[in-house]
Amino acid sequence: MSSFGECPISRFDYDRILLGHGSGGRLTSELIGKLFLPAFGGSPLAALEDAATLDIGMGSRLAFTTDAFVVRPIFFPGGDIGRLAVCGTINDLSVAGAVPRFLSAAFILEEGLALDDLRRIADSMQLACDEAGVELVTGDTKVVDRGKGDQVFITTTGIGLVPQGRSLSIANAKPGDRILVSGTIGDHGVAILSVREGIEFETLLESDVAPLNRLTELLMTECPSIRCMRDPTRGGVAGVLNELAVASRVEVRVTESSLPIRPEVRAACEMLGLDPMYVANEGKLLAVVPGEDADRLLSVARQHPLGRNAALIGSVVSGRLGLVTMQSLVGGERLVPVLAGEQLPRIC
Amino acid sequence: MSSFGECPISRFDYDRILLGHGSGGRLTSELIGKLFLPAFGGSPLAALEDAATLDIGMGSRLAFTTDAFVVRPIFFPGGDIGRLAVCGTINDLSVAGAVPRFLSAAFILEEGLALDDLRRIADSMQLACDEAGVELVTGDTKVVDRGKGDQVFITTTGIGLVPQGRSLSIANAKPGDRILVSGTIGDHGVAILSVREGIEFETLLESDVAPLNRLTELLMTECPSIRCMRDPTRGGVAGVLNELAVASRVEVRVTESSLPIRPEVRAACEMLGLDPMYVANEGKLLAVVPGEDADRLLSVARQHPLGRNAALIGSVVSGRLGLVTMQSLVGGERLVPVLAGEQLPRIC
Repeated sequence: MSSFGECPISRFDYDRILLGHGSGGRLTSELIGKLFLPAFGGSPLAALEDAATLDIGMGSRLAFTTDAFVVRPIFFPGGDIGRLAVCGTINDLSVAGAVPRFLSAAFILEEGLALDDLRRIADSMQLACDEAGVELVTGDTKVVDRGKGDQVFITTTGIGLVPQGRSLSIANAKPGDRILVSGTIGDHGVAILSVREGIEFETLLESDVAPLNRLTELLMTECPSIRCMRDPTRGGVAGVLNELAVASRVEVRVTESSLPIRPEVRAACEMLGLDPMYVANEGKLLAVVPGEDADRLLSVARQHPLGRNAALIGSVVSGRLGLVTMQSLVGGERLVPVLAGEQLPRIC
Repeated sequence: MSSFGECPISRFDYDRILLGHGSGGRLTSELIGKLFLPAFGGSPLAALEDAATLDIGMGSRLAFTTDAFVVRPIFFPGGDIGRLAVCGTINDLSVAGAVPRFLSAAFILEEGLALDDLRRIADSMQLACDEAGVELVTGDTKVVDRGKGDQVFITTTGIGLVPQGRSLSIANAKPGDRILVSGTIGDHGVAILSVREGIEFETLLESDVAPLNRLTELLMTECPSIRCMRDPTRGGVAGVLNELAVASRVEVRVTESSLPIRPEVRAACEMLGLDPMYVANEGKLLAVVPGEDADRLLSVARQHPLGRNAALIGSVVSGRLGLVTMQSLVGGERLVPVLAGEQLPRIC
C-alpha cells in the first residue's frame, strides 16, 4: 500500500529524481502535485503562489517564503549566489504584495570552499539587503564533506508584512487585463549560460539580479487592484503565463513584437538554441493589471531604474482557457507551451 | 585591502572551509565571529541565540529561526532527515520561549534520489508537524547533478509567536540558578554513529529526535522567570553550557553523577571514544532555572513524556567566570572545555 493516497507512484514515469525536477516546469509541478501536496496536505492553488500569507492575529498578515539557491558558477557577470539568494526571496515577498522586512540565510558549505569566496558572498548579501532595506536577522551554517556538495548552497527565507486590503493571486486574471513586464527578458539565464559555455560577445551579458520591492511598492500604491505579480525566474515568462492561464482559467495572448529583449541576449539565444520566453530572469516583474490602468502603470514603471524598459506584452482574453498563445512577428499565431523538463539546470 | 574590517583574514589559521566549521564548536564560532558577523553587522550576542526575535508592531513579537539539515544517513534508528528538520527548527523556536506556528522547507535534491525515499521523508515531516501542532506552509525544491549533493538536504525555517513578558537569553544566568536537563543525553549522536559504524548492541540505540514545544510551554507556564532554554544539538550539553558561562559571565558547575545517560549510550561512547557531554541531542532541553523553582520544575518536567528522565545536573556560581567545571564521579574536578573541531560530522 502506498501512503500516497490518490496519486500512486505508478503515475510517475520514473522512480528517481531527475535534473528536470528542478526546472520550474512540468516536472517540478508534477513533483509538487503528486508527492509534496499529498504528503503535506496543502491546497494546489496555494502551492502556486510565491509566498504563503499568514494571519497571525491582531490584524497582522505576514508573507512567508523560502528558496534554496544552487546556481553554478557561484560568481557570474552581474552577481553571485549571495546577491541572488537575497534578491530571489525579496522578490517572492514583493510579488505577493508584501513589504519585505526580515531574512534568514542557511549555508551548506562544501569542505574546501575558499574563505575569501565565502566572504565575498556574505558582503554581497549585505549589500543587496541594504539596497532593498531588509534585515538579515538569523542564519545557520553546515559543512558537508568534499564531493558531497558544490562549494556553497544558500537557502534564504523571508518575512514580509502585507498591507491591509491587498489580495494578489495567480487565479485573479480577468479578460481585459493587460500583462506588464518591467524590462528586458532572459538576461539572467543567458548571462549564466554564457559563462558556463565560455561564450563571449562584444557587449557583456550581465544578470539582471536585483531586488524588486521598491518597484512593486510603487505599482501597488499607484494601483491597489493589480491582479497578480510574479517574478519570472525558472521557467521564464512562459512558465508564469502558463500558470496564470491555468489558474485563472483564461487565455493569455502575447505579442512577440512587444517583448523587450536585448539584442545581445537575442543573439546568444539564437546561438544556444534557446527561446528567451523560457529563460530565467532575476530582476524582472510580470504584473497582470486592469486594462484601464495599464498605460498609467507602464509610465510609472518606466520612471523607476529597474523599470525603464518596461513594456505591455500581452493581454488576457476569454478564448482558449488555460493556454498561452503568441502573435508572432511574421503574423501567425503559435502556442507557448509549458516547459517539460530542464532547459538550464542550476540557474538559481 | 580586506573588506573584513577589524578581522583580517590573517587571523584565521586556514583559508578554506574545514569539516569542523560545521561542528557547532570553536571553529563554528570563529567562522560566525570573524566572517559572518563583520559582513552582516549583527551583534555577537544575538548570534548566540537560537532564534531572532522580531518586533513587527501592534504588540506582536515573532521568533524566527532557520537550520540546514545534512545528516547522513538520511534514515536512522528513531528518525530521518525529515523528522529532524521539522523538530530541529521547532525546538529552536521553543527554547526561545515562542509558540511555533509556521514552517517552510527547502529541499536540495541530488539527481537520482529515489522518489520512495523522498515520499517517506515528506510523510515523516508531516507527522512531526502534526505532533507539534505546527503548519508547513511553503517550500521550494532544487535539484543538483549527481555527485554535487548527497541525496537530500533540507532547510527548514520557522516562525513562532512570543507571548508577552517572555525574555529568555543565554546572557541571563545568575549565581544560584540550577541547570535542568529534560532527559538522557547523547542519544541522537550515538544512534547516528552506531549506524555509520555498523555497531550493534543488544538494545537498539535510537535517536531522541522530538518536538519540544509542548514541554517548553509547560515549563514556561509554570515558571515565567526561567532564565534561558537551549536544545543541546551540535556541540552537545558541553557546548551550550560553555556558551552560557561566557555570555552570562558565570561559572557553570556540573555534577557528573547527576547526568542522565542510558547504559547503552554510555557503553557505545566508551567503545567509540566519545564523551556524552559533547554528543548531539535532538529532543532534549537544557533550562537554566531560578534555584527556588528548580525542584518544582523538575517534577513538572517529569510528568511530560519527553521529560520523564529529567534531572538537575548542575548550578550556576560566581566562581571562575566563563568556565564549565565538572565534579567527577571519583570526587575530583575537571574543566569541560568547548569542543575545538568536529567530533561527529553531519550529525544534523
